[in-house]
Amino acid sequence: MKIFGIDPGSERTGYGCVERSGSRHHLVLCGSLAAPAAATFPERLQHIHKGLVGLLAECRPDCVVVESIFHAKNVRSALKLAHARGIALLAASEAGLCVHEYAPAEIKRAVVGYGRAEKAQVGQMVKLLLGLDAVPAPHDVADALAIAICHLHNSTGAVAETVARHRAPRGTVRSWREFRPS
Amino acid sequence: MKIFGIDPGSERTGYGCVERSGSRHHLVLCGSLAAPAAATFPERLQHIHKGLVGLLAECRPDCVVVESIFHAKNVRSALKLAHARGIALLAASEAGLCVHEYAPAEIKRAVVGYGRAEKAQVGQMVKLLLGLDAVPAPHDVADALAIAICHLHNSTGAVAETVARHRAPRGTVRSWREFRPS
Repeated sequence: MKIFGIDPGSERTGYGCVERSGSRHHLVLCGSLAAPAAATFPERLQHIHKGLVGLLAECRPDCVVVESIFHAKNVRSALKLAHARGIALLAASEAGLCVHEYAPAEIKRAVVGYGRAEKAQVGQMVKLLLGLDAVPAPHDVADALAIAICHLHNSTGAVAETVARHRAPRGTVRSWREFRPS
Repeated sequence: MKIFGIDPGSERTGYGCVERSGSRHHLVLCGSLAAPAAATFPERLQHIHKGLVGLLAECRPDCVVVESIFHAKNVRSALKLAHARGIALLAASEAGLCVHEYAPAEIKRAVVGYGRAEKAQVGQMVKLLLGLDAVPAPHDVADALAIAICHLHNSTGAVAETVARHRAPRGTVRSWREFRPS
């Protein structure tokens, strides 16, 4: 099962493709798309679209996963993000792929085990779960990978198992919701 | 000068192309794009994209004009609209066209002469200015034409002239901002 996560943004769109082999996940590819600084807003969207169309054709994932944004705090930046998100959904639909959505807290809960985890904690867990040498950067890449991992967990019921593997030291008692990587 | 106005929406996207010949405007084409009711959200965006790409290739306008949405009242519906708006901007950029934006009040002011005009007033003025037999329907179509007319006015400084032509009966004194069609 191969999942393509997208963290859309008009300035920079992170993407990450993760595959499951048995009970393990491994990274297929990840990166970010950023248009030249001088590009207009429509040109940025075109850059994202062209990039994603190429990546989806290359990766041939089983589905695309994005974060839901209907819980926006900053309306202005959420509206800009929604433009880029529309482009991501379009690219997925053009590739004939279904799209799954998760709320930010669901993603953090599935990856870190705690719905209010910090960005740095998400990055650390992505590194750990994919066996990487370093935390993927910039954070949009780690976020895109986290979204893909979230879907892998949710589509296999593997959340509890993954969290248990990286749980608090023996002797301490914590619920999985409270789990945070050291 | 040929202007292509778009009123994006994930349920229905209105479009209208208006051309200026001398001091008069005339309608080139208008209509709306609506995906089948059973379509998913990404499929709707794909339907809009495909439709707009075809229409822009057919019309070959000088530019595309859309309403700005950074003054949203209902955040949830504005976020859905922003997805469709992203698709409209993408289609324009892919066609190599520049995009102009106007705030809702600017559009109403340019077409009706009053920034808080009702939708029905906008429709009536679009009918009048383009010499149509009826108000374009649904309202997304009239709105798309209004956006195109707004840009024609703003790019020629013809606002005052147009409003003066349709002004209040002789003897009454009104500023052009107060003008409303009967």
